[in-house]
Amino acid sequence: MTRVAILNVTGYAGAELARLLHTHPAVELAAVTGRSSVGQRLPEVFPHLWPVDLPITDEVDDSVDLVFSALPHAASAEAVVPFLLRDIPVIDLSADFRLRDAAVYERFYGRPHPAPELLSGAVYGIPEVTGGPGPDTKLVANPGCYAAGAILALAPAVASGAIESAVVDGKSGISGAGRSLGQAYHYSEANDSLSAYGLAGGGHRHRPEMDQELSRLATDGWSPLTFVPHLVPMTRGILTTAYATPARGVPASALGDAYRDFYRSSPFVRIVDTPPATKQVSGTNNCLLHVRSDDPAGRLIIVSVIDNLGRGAAAQAVHNMNRVLGLPETTGLDAVALYP
Amino acid sequence: MTRVAILNVTGYAGAELARLLHTHPAVELAAVTGRSSVGQRLPEVFPHLWPVDLPITDEVDDSVDLVFSALPHAASAEAVVPFLLRDIPVIDLSADFRLRDAAVYERFYGRPHPAPELLSGAVYGIPEVTGGPGPDTKLVANPGCYAAGAILALAPAVASGAIESAVVDGKSGISGAGRSLGQAYHYSEANDSLSAYGLAGGGHRHRPEMDQELSRLATDGWSPLTFVPHLVPMTRGILTTAYATPARGVPASALGDAYRDFYRSSPFVRIVDTPPATKQVSGTNNCLLHVRSDDPAGRLIIVSVIDNLGRGAAAQAVHNMNRVLGLPETTGLDAVALYP
Amino acid sequence: MTRVAILNVTGYAGAELARLLHTHPAVELAAVTGRSSVGQRLPEVFPHLWPVDLPITDEVDDSVDLVFSALPHAASAEAVVPFLLRDIPVIDLSADFRLRDAAVYERFYGRPHPAPELLSGAVYGIPEVTGGPGPDTKLVANPGCYAAGAILALAPAVASGAIESAVVDGKSGISGAGRSLGQAYHYSEANDSLSAYGLAGGGHRHRPEMDQELSRLATDGWSPLTFVPHLVPMTRGILTTAYATPARGVPASALGDAYRDFYRSSPFVRIVDTPPATKQVSGTNNCLLHVRSDDPAGRLIIVSVIDNLGRGAAAQAVHNMNRVLGLPETTGLDAVALYP
Amino acid sequence: MTRVAILNVTGYAGAELARLLHTHPAVELAAVTGRSSVGQRLPEVFPHLWPVDLPITDEVDDSVDLVFSALPHAASAEAVVPFLLRDIPVIDLSADFRLRDAAVYERFYGRPHPAPELLSGAVYGIPEVTGGPGPDTKLVANPGCYAAGAILALAPAVASGAIESAVVDGKSGISGAGRSLGQAYHYSEANDSLSAYGLAGGGHRHRPEMDQELSRLATDGWSPLTFVPHLVPMTRGILTTAYATPARGVPASALGDAYRDFYRSSPFVRIVDTPPATKQVSGTNNCLLHVRSDDPAGRLIIVSVIDNLGRGAAAQAVHNMNRVLGLPETTGLDAVALYP
Repeated sequence: MTRVAILNVTGYAGAELARLLHTHPAVELAAVTGRSSVGQRLPEVFPHLWPVDLPITDEVDDSVDLVFSALPHAASAEAVVPFLLRDIPVIDLSADFRLRDAAVYERFYGRPHPAPELLSGAVYGIPEVTGGPGPDTKLVANPGCYAAGAILALAPAVASGAIESAVVDGKSGISGAGRSLGQAYHYSEANDSLSAYGLAGGGHRHRPEMDQELSRLATDGWSPLTFVPHLVPMTRGILTTAYATPARGVPASALGDAYRDFYRSSPFVRIVDTPPATKQVSGTNNCLLHVRSDDPAGRLIIVSVIDNLGRGAAAQAVHNMNRVLGLPETTGLDAVALYP
Repeated sequence: MTRVAILNVTGYAGAELARLLHTHPAVELAAVTGRSSVGQRLPEVFPHLWPVDLPITDEVDDSVDLVFSALPHAASAEAVVPFLLRDIPVIDLSADFRLRDAAVYERFYGRPHPAPELLSGAVYGIPEVTGGPGPDTKLVANPGCYAAGAILALAPAVASGAIESAVVDGKSGISGAGRSLGQAYHYSEANDSLSAYGLAGGGHRHRPEMDQELSRLATDGWSPLTFVPHLVPMTRGILTTAYATPARGVPASALGDAYRDFYRSSPFVRIVDTPPATKQVSGTNNCLLHVRSDDPAGRLIIVSVIDNLGRGAAAQAVHNMNRVLGLPETTGLDAVALYP
Repeated sequence: MTRVAILNVTGYAGAELARLLHTHPAVELAAVTGRSSVGQRLPEVFPHLWPVDLPITDEVDDSVDLVFSALPHAASAEAVVPFLLRDIPVIDLSADFRLRDAAVYERFYGRPHPAPELLSGAVYGIPEVTGGPGPDTKLVANPGCYAAGAILALAPAVASGAIESAVVDGKSGISGAGRSLGQAYHYSEANDSLSAYGLAGGGHRHRPEMDQELSRLATDGWSPLTFVPHLVPMTRGILTTAYATPARGVPASALGDAYRDFYRSSPFVRIVDTPPATKQVSGTNNCLLHVRSDDPAGRLIIVSVIDNLGRGAAAQAVHNMNRVLGLPETTGLDAVALYP
Repeated sequence: MTRVAILNVTGYAGAELARLLHTHPAVELAAVTGRSSVGQRLPEVFPHLWPVDLPITDEVDDSVDLVFSALPHAASAEAVVPFLLRDIPVIDLSADFRLRDAAVYERFYGRPHPAPELLSGAVYGIPEVTGGPGPDTKLVANPGCYAAGAILALAPAVASGAIESAVVDGKSGISGAGRSLGQAYHYSEANDSLSAYGLAGGGHRHRPEMDQELSRLATDGWSPLTFVPHLVPMTRGILTTAYATPARGVPASALGDAYRDFYRSSPFVRIVDTPPATKQVSGTNNCLLHVRSDDPAGRLIIVSVIDNLGRGAAAQAVHNMNRVLGLPETTGLDAVALYP
């Protein structure tokens, strides 16, 4: 059994990782760290993790074979360097290694990158689109939740040359804001209400990730996306609605086939004929996609749904781990979505 | 006191009208009709309307001074004709008199218009934008809920010549689907989940309304909108996110002022500096608007929130009634939103 | 116009008071205080209160005619003393003047009472049950939210001699926990989940209030209630389910009439034949009661619903103010519940 | 692999069974029936079951080794007889074989029992309490959802002689009402609201189940329970709050140990020191119990949480199947709850 550790298990992504790894047949969850919770056992913080009765420690020693970091940005980069130096593969769920350009990182995260020398070696891990990671990968940058939903929605259209930009309207469940308290996430404020956010200061941090990865697929240039995220009164799930004007000469009717071809070999992505609901993928690494090319205004419309803590964080991280370890992609990820 | 009646009080728009009219200082709610509920009293169907203890009848006689119709389309047009013939003003909350072109009506509602001769005399009633209705109006077409949100969001930009089309991403609470049962509105299916809908068959029926009214404001031509509605797990509220590329030569930075100017005299519409939440207008005729012109991709982004049963239906209808009756616009509409 | 002030408008009870007082025809909301928000205007903290454009100040001078205190316990008692000394009536929404026995206060609130000399002069304000307050009242203790629901549910049975104790199962919407942040009220934790709380340390603080007021009605002695509160994933509303074994000799079938008699003159309380839902009283001072005396096990079952921020806080406070000012009870409280 | 079938897969219990059985390592889900959906494939009805791509048929042949029936009562008894005649074990999730007394069945279900001769051979399947089923069992009556929560909450206290009756306040998520439409389960009615129900006509049907099973454990007689169910605005979960006066001579402080002893060998039940939340068991067969014996009024208070579709239906059914097949109890039931 491969021994794995989770840095900062006490957020929602960390807890979801613990949930998935506990029943993963090829790995043993050997250690978990926290910050304010050091000294407690995991079920004291998360009663639902009662079967995962591990102590929350301050540090992880080098007896582990692979490390997940669910630390916040900046803290994460600093924490994973020692593991990389010891040649222990790292799957980083923070934003630290997603952006290849340290200057873009600094602009969006408000500080110089803590380890810019590692950026070129990191693999952005959304395998259906980026091809990686693989057995040789040492550092995986796990995508941002909104970025995962948008990239899965747009990649086939971009790769086929049909579009060169898009409007991305993102709608997320509130667990995407994390477990830390905030007035906007206080139940009485968030329940039965809806708002947009992330509009000021150049937009949301996940937008440059989308542009970075989609522009790599583009055959004829790329113009920046417009991206507006919204806070939806539900716990999990991201629905992305993407709008784009197809390039002249690309028959819109061909795009459905382009999507099916693009995802033909993925066990996690499925093109569906009726608009999907976020709850249909709850707890999984799955993505359901709905593609429309018959808009009266001539725009292409793509809708994707993912679980923000699944494909948008922890399940995607396990998917990436499976590839790093040379396991079948679906190992430990074959549970069916919890519905209703 | 002006005596008013509600046709089909037993849906959500009808019930909301009864709620608002009960405390309106200038009118008396004199009669309400239902369909399956004839013979019951209103509080038997809606316990919250206990103070509005009226019998639900089959028909309304001509002793009333003004009629609201909350009937479904087609049934509404047929029911209001007799009142119009007797010169009793009608405020129609159905879709029957919103579209000026009977052929467009037939395409989107699947049947010939029941009373096409009345179309030219109907006033589309969103006063801040259309200027009407007024004391001479006999037939008011109350806007569709999504249309109200989108038109309020886009009208100033269109009227100023800044935009000639847009992408409109609409997000509605589930009461917008009405009180009739449906699998998609069953609690266990809808709760904690999110989906798009209305994508097939030429798109949602409120889109031609938006195009009709916005194209009338356009100074340099108009291209059809793209509109995708979404079903959000909350009871009330519509948030509209509109995206548009400003025409060359229009300084985007000027648009905030254009919005403030456009709505200067409206007591119901307010431009806000932080993105609004739908719950901030719950139970009211209000609309909060947030305008961004600093998108890195150069697009104009406008967010509006309304209550789909308020400004999107019943409160807008009372607003229109106030204008028809020559009352101050805010009469009976001065309650503050219920929050949280 | 009577000039009134709200101390600590920035919690949910304070904001609801502002909402109700803004449209109250006999009073003018003249001043509001906050704590962390001093210097802001009210709509900056609560955008839905945009029409109530008052500055949030640190203190209120003695130009006001009546004061509401929505301060936390202990702070409230200290803050209202100066107004009482100047003979300005106070309606206190905190717990400070609800318990007549300073020793009980100290046990449940963990500190000596700040102004025990005022306890005997305070009137517990749930008029249908306690008869007060009236025009001579200087200090009103507004009931706790759970206490209001339980006392309204049980008072007629207790006063008729039918019961001498009860089990009270309370179920509250999450706004009852206030606007201050807490992990249990974080949206992602509270949504789609249900829990009991307040079981340790002698039980919830509202229980001694219930026992105090109900024991005053009891004709043949009183044994302490058992009370367990629950946190329900909804914003507003309290449903109370009370269970009691009727005394021998009291025909259970007579209790429905006892309830109707008891509340005959109240415009706010209504006995209903089908179990009520909390949303049917949202935003109001109303209470719906359902009484069952046909339980196979012979117990009496009473269900009450109130709005925890309405009858459980702000609307009850306005009701009490109306009585202190000698106004009709329903003044400013005639709005119909917002439903759905 | 044992080949199993589900009768009536198209309700929520049936769908949850399909979800659990798909990843169960010892069985193959070989056939599923529906009623209105015959001819469709399972993922057409439930997109989240996309990996379970079975046709929905009208009937199941005798090539299967075990049958689950998720049919409604009466229909279920009729449908399972042929399997029993062929010696194929049946786990019945309907109410048909829960009540041992056909007269009680007729009173609560409004019709004569369809197969009263089978009642004596059925095993009520809540293994921690009833000991059964086992390898020889041919017919398992899977408990009602409320009954499961209440029996798990009360059994140790009853078996220890501490209590002889109780008040049971049940609170269920709305999926308990099933997938069939109803006004009370329409999203806009149910959301953000709470109500009691099932009070008329002798009370809820699950109450006689509770009395039947608990009276079998009682050492000194049993008086009927009082049971009131409530509809809570959440999808899954049942929280049961039980109140009972301990018999004289039973030291209340000993009851915590009695609970721990009673459930010592169960991998699914856990006694917790802080009140549990329903979401902590979502998707599982688990039950968390909290026991208080320090109520000021001297009553014993027990809180249990289960997933109404898990321990209250499908996971309990798989648990029972594991025992019938002689498998370890937790086979296929080791997934961790989905949280948040």
